[in-house]
Amino acid sequence: MEKQKNMENASENKPWIRTVTPEITPPDLKDNTADVDRLIKVIKKALSTGSVSVEFKLVQRLSRTMRECDYNVCAILFEGPKGWHLIDIVPSRDGESIYGLAVDLGSSTVVIRLLDLISRKTKDEMSFHNPQIEIGTDILTRIHFAAQEGGLSELQGLIIDRLNHKIDQLAQKNGISAGSIVGMSVAGNTTMTHLFLGLDPYWLCREPYIPVINKLDPIKSAELGLAINPVAPVLVFPNVGSYFGGDLIAGILASGITQSNETSFLVDVGTNAEVVIGNSDWLMACAGAAGPALEGGVADMGMMAGPGVIEKVRSDPSSSEFEIRTIENQPPVGICGSGLIDLAAQLFLAGMIDLRGKYVAARCGDRLVEIDGIKQLIIVPSRDSATGQALTLAQTDIDGLMRSKAAMYTILTTLSNSVNIPLSKITRFYVAGTFGSYIDPQSAITIGMIPDLPLETYVPLGNTSLEGAGMALMSSQAKGEVFRIRDRVTYLELNVNQEFMNLFSAAKFIPHTDRSLFPSVKERMY
Amino acid sequence: MEKQKNMENASENKPWIRTVTPEITPPDLKDNTADVDRLIKVIKKALSTGSVSVEFKLVQRLSRTMRECDYNVCAILFEGPKGWHLIDIVPSRDGESIYGLAVDLGSSTVVIRLLDLISRKTKDEMSFHNPQIEIGTDILTRIHFAAQEGGLSELQGLIIDRLNHKIDQLAQKNGISAGSIVGMSVAGNTTMTHLFLGLDPYWLCREPYIPVINKLDPIKSAELGLAINPVAPVLVFPNVGSYFGGDLIAGILASGITQSNETSFLVDVGTNAEVVIGNSDWLMACAGAAGPALEGGVADMGMMAGPGVIEKVRSDPSSSEFEIRTIENQPPVGICGSGLIDLAAQLFLAGMIDLRGKYVAARCGDRLVEIDGIKQLIIVPSRDSATGQALTLAQTDIDGLMRSKAAMYTILTTLSNSVNIPLSKITRFYVAGTFGSYIDPQSAITIGMIPDLPLETYVPLGNTSLEGAGMALMSSQAKGEVFRIRDRVTYLELNVNQEFMNLFSAAKFIPHTDRSLFPSVKERMY
Repeated sequence: MEKQKNMENASENKPWIRTVTPEITPPDLKDNTADVDRLIKVIKKALSTGSVSVEFKLVQRLSRTMRECDYNVCAILFEGPKGWHLIDIVPSRDGESIYGLAVDLGSSTVVIRLLDLISRKTKDEMSFHNPQIEIGTDILTRIHFAAQEGGLSELQGLIIDRLNHKIDQLAQKNGISAGSIVGMSVAGNTTMTHLFLGLDPYWLCREPYIPVINKLDPIKSAELGLAINPVAPVLVFPNVGSYFGGDLIAGILASGITQSNETSFLVDVGTNAEVVIGNSDWLMACAGAAGPALEGGVADMGMMAGPGVIEKVRSDPSSSEFEIRTIENQPPVGICGSGLIDLAAQLFLAGMIDLRGKYVAARCGDRLVEIDGIKQLIIVPSRDSATGQALTLAQTDIDGLMRSKAAMYTILTTLSNSVNIPLSKITRFYVAGTFGSYIDPQSAITIGMIPDLPLETYVPLGNTSLEGAGMALMSSQAKGEVFRIRDRVTYLELNVNQEFMNLFSAAKFIPHTDRSLFPSVKERMY
Repeated sequence: MEKQKNMENASENKPWIRTVTPEITPPDLKDNTADVDRLIKVIKKALSTGSVSVEFKLVQRLSRTMRECDYNVCAILFEGPKGWHLIDIVPSRDGESIYGLAVDLGSSTVVIRLLDLISRKTKDEMSFHNPQIEIGTDILTRIHFAAQEGGLSELQGLIIDRLNHKIDQLAQKNGISAGSIVGMSVAGNTTMTHLFLGLDPYWLCREPYIPVINKLDPIKSAELGLAINPVAPVLVFPNVGSYFGGDLIAGILASGITQSNETSFLVDVGTNAEVVIGNSDWLMACAGAAGPALEGGVADMGMMAGPGVIEKVRSDPSSSEFEIRTIENQPPVGICGSGLIDLAAQLFLAGMIDLRGKYVAARCGDRLVEIDGIKQLIIVPSRDSATGQALTLAQTDIDGLMRSKAAMYTILTTLSNSVNIPLSKITRFYVAGTFGSYIDPQSAITIGMIPDLPLETYVPLGNTSLEGAGMALMSSQAKGEVFRIRDRVTYLELNVNQEFMNLFSAAKFIPHTDRSLFPSVKERMY
């Protein structure tokens, strides 16, 4: 409810990309003001501003367009940090449709949203794999590749070309011209943003982890080779550091936590777990490697969400049989992060794993097998799986999950300790990302990943990076808030935090060494 | 004296292109501010400013340069209308030499002056023909050519390429790199400026004579294809209209007339006669076609200044012989504007032309011949000329001069009438341009071209367009004054002025129908 209200407030706000249809008196001998100066004068009046800049390349054709339509033009402008800038003019008879693109620049998946900048409504949306995956699925591989001769420009070229291809598809599908796309906002992590901009990511992964730049003024799209209006501003979300990027700032914006006096948590679990606590006065953030076990590729049977991937698991206490639900109800092919958490919770509640996360042979029965010296639990027998192979969960996979869940809980505890607010006092806990939408809070509580709070405390927000990017593109207030958020975030470095290591050890049990922290879990145990 | 003082004031002023060598603390885990943000922060502090912008293309290599020299950098910046902009950084061990180029962009001759922006001294200077001459010597031909397919970009390419070639020569000769040239200012008439910028000049010569643009913010040199530092600002002087360009605004700046309470005249005679009257409170200007007879190409023997060109003429009253002085004392080849005025004055004083400017046969003797029905006076017999042909002055040449001098005097009278200050009250009369340096005020007074004022009233200034361009490049105050001058000039349109036509008729006599206006001339008549 609160979040909804904030977003409405933001969109009621003034746009920073807009059109103006000024009344221009054509020149005569008594007023020989030049064409461009004449245009700028009326625009200044219409916008009640003292400053309207004109890109030099634009000057070269403004006069012609003005004369071709007898000075009846519609001007498209954006407001930068130092005043308004002319993006383009079009004959006013051609109408005033202008569009923008919000981009969630993920390392795995990129989502672009086409927005009508007049009605402020979403017109279309498209998602696709980040083509840099062909260089490397993980970020470090891409950073190393960028250090090779020509590597950086190849990585940048891959994402720019794919974006242009998708923008073209989106424009054609919606019957609009690329030139009418007059703004873009891009939220991504710090490395993805560096690669998008062609900035050297070399130092991002080397102590003391320094980005090339934190805050950028909007960039002309032509400078990035983007196939939209060449003077369109590209708002690239700023970062707080190597490990706290623009995607999280977009998330904070979208969550609305900075619009409230109440202190809330925002958790985004991707490759890293990124966590923010704060309110309208302050923001404290940290990030840690909590995520690997929760993303595809860590567990042998783990994978990213897709058809046939197990997303929910329930167990029947009497039979020890699993009731599984797959995406699109396809025969099971593997398991995703939310499914894994569900599964671990069920295994624990059924006594099939103990409080250290180790398989209990007596409870697992003949489902437990040993392959290459590693204990594996058969989750889906070969006859039921889509692959013809049994889907199994190795002890090592559970061990990985235990570290991840411990890291997550420890990050949350460390952060709340750092601001001296007990976890139990938090009334709102926003969970961002695809993962956030699928995760079952009860299961996550059961394994001690997140605090044992009333379930309604947990609010899934979906793709907050995309949502925040769209908000900042459409509202001047939201755009300003992006930079205020960035400047207000205090980043807590966990790598040098001794308290973290102590808490981490205590959190490597299910649900925790201190059982009193998780009263509801005991009730649910068989 | 006064002018000298103003120019010193201006150069005492703060530069708008400068270097800063900030103390940068290298990053560590406790301060993970990004490289570029780190740099900008210290520059802001050093300049005591809240705003330093960085060109996006520059971001891509700032970080590398900073790290290569252990954060010991020298930053080069310029102040634009909305704050400071970074032009470049260099390792501070490489020193801080920065240079600028002032350009007088004439339609016939281009002069470039290399300035040391630290010492604010002229390092070198070079002049060359405007290569657009090969398209057409006069401005109208070039405007028509620009309307042809590819014509405009050909004209722009000609001047840009030639400038780059000369800049390269200048840099090599002075042992400096093109990248260390970090600023440029260009003063030219409105058409030359349009062609330099690649702006369509089509409407400049068509009623109601509207430029594409009056005032431009500094342009990045790379956008114009100039071979200096790519982020160097190019300050293009603004114009008041099609017929009052940046060269004249530079002239007003260099003359210092806006720094004085006394009302002064500034006259610049090129293809047009451009005249300004004003003081620190107001400026009134007009331009008219007074010049043609005074430039090479109108009189049959007329030509631009060069070796062998007659620049001074005296006559011996007793013998009617001419005593001529040529440039570099070479055998005579022709006559330039100042020589022509001298000659006409001597002819009048010797009674060889009458008050209408017509040859008096009785006084000219056998020097007066008739060729193709036109009376010609032999100035240099064939035996003495460099061409082997006699140099003669046709009646039609004198007729042309009479129209020009009448136009000039009428412009001066009209302007002074318009502000209700009699010509006789003017105590300072600045004469700009090469022509202004050579003209003998006494001769010009004799033929009634300029008012009969004490000779010391007339002050030659040389190339004020170049001088003003240099001042504006080196001083923030002078740059600001350029735009204040532009906004203060009131332009008097002579084409629609009836008074002008009446005064013009009265001024077509030597020195004038009203002899009382020229008391000194009578004294000098033989």
